[in-house]
Amino acid sequence: MTVQTIQAAYYRGDKSFAVEPAQAQPPAAGEVAVRIAFCGICGTDMHVYHGNMDARVGLNRIVGHEMSGVVDAVGQGVEGFAPGQKVVVRPLDHCGDCPACDAGHAHICHNLKFLGLDTDGAMQEIWTVPAHVLHALPDDMRLDHAALIEPAAVACHDVALAQVGEGDDVLVIGGGPIGVLVAMVARAAGGTVTVSEVNPNRLAILDKLGLATLNPREVDLAAEVTGRTGGKGADVVFEVSGTQAGVDAMTTVAATRARIVMVAIHATKPQIDLFQFFWRELKLLGARVYTPADYDKAIELVASGAVDADTIITDVSPLADIQAAFEALDASPTALKSLIKVGDIA
Amino acid sequence: MTVQTIQAAYYRGDKSFAVEPAQAQPPAAGEVAVRIAFCGICGTDMHVYHGNMDARVGLNRIVGHEMSGVVDAVGQGVEGFAPGQKVVVRPLDHCGDCPACDAGHAHICHNLKFLGLDTDGAMQEIWTVPAHVLHALPDDMRLDHAALIEPAAVACHDVALAQVGEGDDVLVIGGGPIGVLVAMVARAAGGTVTVSEVNPNRLAILDKLGLATLNPREVDLAAEVTGRTGGKGADVVFEVSGTQAGVDAMTTVAATRARIVMVAIHATKPQIDLFQFFWRELKLLGARVYTPADYDKAIELVASGAVDADTIITDVSPLADIQAAFEALDASPTALKSLIKVGDIA
Ligand SMILES: [Zn+2]
Ligand SMILES: [Zn+2]
Ligand SMILES: [Zn+2]
Ligand SMILES: [Zn+2]
Repeated sequence: MTVQTIQAAYYRGDKSFAVEPAQAQPPAAGEVAVRIAFCGICGTDMHVYHGNMDARVGLNRIVGHEMSGVVDAVGQGVEGFAPGQKVVVRPLDHCGDCPACDAGHAHICHNLKFLGLDTDGAMQEIWTVPAHVLHALPDDMRLDHAALIEPAAVACHDVALAQVGEGDDVLVIGGGPIGVLVAMVARAAGGTVTVSEVNPNRLAILDKLGLATLNPREVDLAAEVTGRTGGKGADVVFEVSGTQAGVDAMTTVAATRARIVMVAIHATKPQIDLFQFFWRELKLLGARVYTPADYDKAIELVASGAVDADTIITDVSPLADIQAAFEALDASPTALKSLIKVGDIA
Repeated sequence: MTVQTIQAAYYRGDKSFAVEPAQAQPPAAGEVAVRIAFCGICGTDMHVYHGNMDARVGLNRIVGHEMSGVVDAVGQGVEGFAPGQKVVVRPLDHCGDCPACDAGHAHICHNLKFLGLDTDGAMQEIWTVPAHVLHALPDDMRLDHAALIEPAAVACHDVALAQVGEGDDVLVIGGGPIGVLVAMVARAAGGTVTVSEVNPNRLAILDKLGLATLNPREVDLAAEVTGRTGGKGADVVFEVSGTQAGVDAMTTVAATRARIVMVAIHATKPQIDLFQFFWRELKLLGARVYTPADYDKAIELVASGAVDADTIITDVSPLADIQAAFEALDASPTALKSLIKVGDIA
């Protein structure tokens, strides 16, 4: 196998990326080399850019995990994938030998490696990964749309944990990229969805997506949700804002026995109204990444258009412009999903 | 029906009870008059005694709901109960017409009346209640033991919500009366139970009950639980302490996907480590009172001895001494359950 020279974007610390030639890693036994089409910029990648994760990623890391691509080459013993197949990567590598793996929860393995953070990721033209992290895509799926499958799988995991079903009144607190995806997936599951958001541009996008909205700066959130649900409250609440205000709101809008899913990652310890948990027998569900089934569901929803990829993707930049793309996304409070076009295959 | 003169204990505010003659209320249609044998002093009754609930109960209230008795007389249309039948009351009266009742969760009805707080209760020789709140007892059940059924039903509700099953590692944080009952019920459900408690007298009682214990003032709680569970952590955690320390502990001891039941009523809003909820996909379950099924289970466990009533009941006083009984319980940090012998029928 000849070694291929590719372009790769390295995070070098202090809000800087360098795009440089690199050598593609040939696939070892059990591995697959994927030619990357698109890679979305995740909130986590933005944390890396800000230097908040230097201890974890170091200063010579190729980030990126919200990707789409086609198989370039397969290593020895790999079955079910052949060059040309459209794929996405579920960027989780588990240990197989810890209490979480033993209990069948490999996606939250105690020794989980997240590909694109703990290893090099998809912001390079060819990315070589273990075959077990691949999911095949339908042949006719657009590869820009497919770059939304990873964040859509996060939303599918949240909605599955909450067991959203037909007729459930759902409130999503926070209308950023993940909030919008959670809202779409919850709607596809049969929920009657309202999104709480304060930013007018995001509210306009939510309107365009046909999602009911409310602005808690303009109306009393609890009274509004109670009124819209016939006095009952929301059966399912997704806290996506990551703020104390969102945590305060989640218990005031909840129906008796509501399921509250903690989608946002709270680095500090917010105060929680446990009295309401008692009074209405509320449930709080922690949610992290996704299972293979969540990935399958996300592929289905992106393919069907239930996840409206065109509206969510607000920017696409070539790999050479990755620095400018991060700077622009960082400066824009209203952009939803910004993609990097890594290779020229779509 | 002749009117019967009975003795009744009235809460008159400011840590005082008055035991006075009263007229028993004859049972109206659909009601049953119950001759009270024993009535336990609940933590809630102690709150009343301290004046914390004057706005709710007023200053002429007969408290008491952890009772046992025998049917004295039945009102028109009551079926299934006859004089002499041993009974307990499930002290919840629901509205039948609110979102919680509509959803089948009448025990947390939005307009729930708690008998013995929102109405007069069992600290009187004859208590007249709606027939639908009665549960029949086995003929051979001791009526002092039966006074533990109400708090045992709280524990049954907590354990049922957590779905404790064979082989689950269970940690109970706080070894007071409810913590001890939760521990016994969780053990009966198949859990391997450890109780965290700091008070030496309570630790001695827990030992006597055959429950594993640990003292978080003497060992590192998280390390100890991790060690005892083979590195996994507790599958189910019951937070019964009502303290910030208990809330801090609950997330440090929890296994991946652990269920944490909030048994204590937190009047303030504690800080919660939501990062751990994310990291290990923890669940927090609010729990309030009990359902009819929880009552049936509690009756079964008290009857079988799985709930060791003799060890839990630490004091019995006659109704005439109710004032002294409250004062003694208030002054004792280690007493478990104090009963009032209301009538002379057992
Ligand atoms: Zn991501
Ligand atoms: Zn593992
Ligand atoms: Zn009670
Ligand atoms: Zn009701």
